[in-house]
Amino acid sequence: MSRIAPLSGFPELLPGQRIVEQRVLDRLAHTFELYGFSSIQTRAVEPMEQLLRKGETSKEVYVLRRLQADESDSGDSGLGLHFDLTVPLARYVLENAGRLQFPFRRYQIQPCWRGERPQEGRFREFWQADVDVVDRDDLSGHYEVELPLLIGDALRSLPIPRMRMHVNNRKLSQGFYRGLGIADPMAAIRAVDKLDKIGPRGVADLLAETTGADDAQVAACLALAEIHSEDESFVDRVRALGVSDPLLDEGLSELGAVVTAAAEDAPGLVVADLRIARGLDYYTGTVYETYMDGYANLGSVCSGGRYDDLASEGRNRFPGVGLSIGVSRILVPLLNEGRLAPTREVPTCVLVALPNEERRRDCDRIARALRSRGIAAEVAPAAQKYGKQIRFAERRGIPFVWFPGDAEGGDEVRDIRSGEQSAADGAKWSPPDADLRPRIA
Amino acid sequence: MSRIAPLSGFPELLPGQRIVEQRVLDRLAHTFELYGFSSIQTRAVEPMEQLLRKGETSKEVYVLRRLQADESDSGDSGLGLHFDLTVPLARYVLENAGRLQFPFRRYQIQPCWRGERPQEGRFREFWQADVDVVDRDDLSGHYEVELPLLIGDALRSLPIPRMRMHVNNRKLSQGFYRGLGIADPMAAIRAVDKLDKIGPRGVADLLAETTGADDAQVAACLALAEIHSEDESFVDRVRALGVSDPLLDEGLSELGAVVTAAAEDAPGLVVADLRIARGLDYYTGTVYETYMDGYANLGSVCSGGRYDDLASEGRNRFPGVGLSIGVSRILVPLLNEGRLAPTREVPTCVLVALPNEERRRDCDRIARALRSRGIAAEVAPAAQKYGKQIRFAERRGIPFVWFPGDAEGGDEVRDIRSGEQSAADGAKWSPPDADLRPRIA
Repeated sequence: MSRIAPLSGFPELLPGQRIVEQRVLDRLAHTFELYGFSSIQTRAVEPMEQLLRKGETSKEVYVLRRLQADESDSGDSGLGLHFDLTVPLARYVLENAGRLQFPFRRYQIQPCWRGERPQEGRFREFWQADVDVVDRDDLSGHYEVELPLLIGDALRSLPIPRMRMHVNNRKLSQGFYRGLGIADPMAAIRAVDKLDKIGPRGVADLLAETTGADDAQVAACLALAEIHSEDESFVDRVRALGVSDPLLDEGLSELGAVVTAAAEDAPGLVVADLRIARGLDYYTGTVYETYMDGYANLGSVCSGGRYDDLASEGRNRFPGVGLSIGVSRILVPLLNEGRLAPTREVPTCVLVALPNEERRRDCDRIARALRSRGIAAEVAPAAQKYGKQIRFAERRGIPFVWFPGDAEGGDEVRDIRSGEQSAADGAKWSPPDADLRPRIA
Repeated sequence: MSRIAPLSGFPELLPGQRIVEQRVLDRLAHTFELYGFSSIQTRAVEPMEQLLRKGETSKEVYVLRRLQADESDSGDSGLGLHFDLTVPLARYVLENAGRLQFPFRRYQIQPCWRGERPQEGRFREFWQADVDVVDRDDLSGHYEVELPLLIGDALRSLPIPRMRMHVNNRKLSQGFYRGLGIADPMAAIRAVDKLDKIGPRGVADLLAETTGADDAQVAACLALAEIHSEDESFVDRVRALGVSDPLLDEGLSELGAVVTAAAEDAPGLVVADLRIARGLDYYTGTVYETYMDGYANLGSVCSGGRYDDLASEGRNRFPGVGLSIGVSRILVPLLNEGRLAPTREVPTCVLVALPNEERRRDCDRIARALRSRGIAAEVAPAAQKYGKQIRFAERRGIPFVWFPGDAEGGDEVRDIRSGEQSAADGAKWSPPDADLRPRIA
């Protein structure tokens, strides 16, 4: 067997790091459920034809084949691993439309896979936490207001750096470009989407090249991209550019509603930022990107938007709006830098010390009594000297060691951080709440 | 786009069924943590050379390739999806040996994939919940006693049919066959493992053929396989067969310890059953299989055993013992038969009714107040007549509808099951505990 080594792009956590991840995922799920979102899980695989509907991503897909596939076996030849949770959602909604209640509020926390070259903040296997509202036929605009507030609640419940969500509206951009006389507004959106990468000059050239925009039109596009505000003041600044179009009006009004509600319920979370474009063609309304303070290099860690045509089949149309939190993208760097750590490395709250091997069953009974009241306990692996057993607990951060009584006296429990030791009854004693389970330190 | 249809062998749950699965997985994880087991998650992929160490399973592996793989890309060519959680654990332990604390108590709840032909209780994607204790160099036998008790606690905390764990010991079988004069005890174990499939006559023929056993030896092997008991009485019955071997003695003593402790702590859970063989070569001590009452057709739903050489590299040896609960194998049939159902289909406890669209922000504030105290709430999607809004809640099983006050009166909340309605304050009202979250009905 060859040497065991990590696989680049497939991050794995040590048990203590995993405790942090568990707490984060629990917290996210809890917040999503407080808003009435249902959990679903979809299978890891989708038919290739589903995965390739968004042409761009084809190069990232992992395709499956059975090692011993034979002629008679056709079922699995066209399967690949999902690269996001949006394509599986669209398929799940179509497949189960008759059995779901609409509007369908769902969250989904699962790994995704992309065969990308690994780079900072990009992995080949990564966890995402997605929330979407999908309705039948029409989707009310108030969900575009609600989702960023939900995400704000979810992210602010975590001990991570501050998040800022940059929001734009596809109707606003498209209406503006159209009102400006640009024939292919989507080409303009794709050009502006490259602002971070190639700068205003590069975007100007690209606009001229791909949309035929003249200097005045290019200048107006770049001026629009510079507008941002935490309140509705962006509306007047757009109006001042002198472009008018009914779609632009709709977009301004919808984006205004998002910013106003967020300023009230989650001050400092949301900024209207008219340079946000998001390259994907399927967005049709509000679009979101989120950056973590001090980690701009990671790119957006929570993105999404409204889509009207992603899940459609024949006459059935299921418009939706959703956001996707890049759990691995956020957590892996913070864990690797040691910015997030657990209060202890194991779930165990009490180590029951073992006086000698003959008394193991007695010790098991003590542990059992503690567990029956929700206190995580394990019995020492061997009847070493008590000093060694205490060090066993110390190395793992287990806060309490339990000493079973004998002919000379009853049970005692020691807080090995303070050294405080006192008589205790396994059927009654409880640790302080803060010690019951490991937390994020 | 072709018609959307389910993929055979890749079960997916509806949102209500998923609530049941969530409760089950939470309960399992909680029990594992009460025993001090740490959660880990391993990547979905392993190098093919790791996956193929157990030769037999080669035909079941899903191999990956990047859709657009090019010449310069060599990294992913040898990757496959894991088919169990034991091979990944062995690799994880070797890879992180310097950073783990031993004995390492870990649990792992993840999907696995096998390219098998789907059949009842067998899936191509399925969830397993594994618990293992792995130590460095040597592993004390008391973990073989502890693990079935943990599994018993975990399974009995679930509202599922009764489980019976059938336990044997590889040393007992090997020692017996050796003491009997059979030259290849592993061949005998593999033959006896087929008892369910081919019956005593088939096993007799197979024993004669693969081990050269004579009639008396075959009769003794079959007599051993008939012995089972819930207490240590199996020991005398084995002794009565007149075979002696030091390894047999060890096995009898170890199996006796398991049965005795289980009879005391979990009466009715464990039966010593000397026909249990488990085909896999890597087991070296206790072996476990578990059957669900009324579902013998599913085969074992929780299996495992002690292995001494699975995780070894050079001089480093990490013996372990583990059990794997077939979560999908247990839950999917029970869910499909409707034997497990949630108390409601969504997490929402309170639907805040919407008098008219202008008051949406007021209603959002009520929902917000409820959520801030841990009560899941959503605002009605549209300002329909109250009768329609109540039916919206009914269809989802949401127990309470909140009516915002107006100039004529304050807020009121109605339990739509009883019709009882009373004045309420969003900052103070709480539902009964049983209604706070959906449960398994």
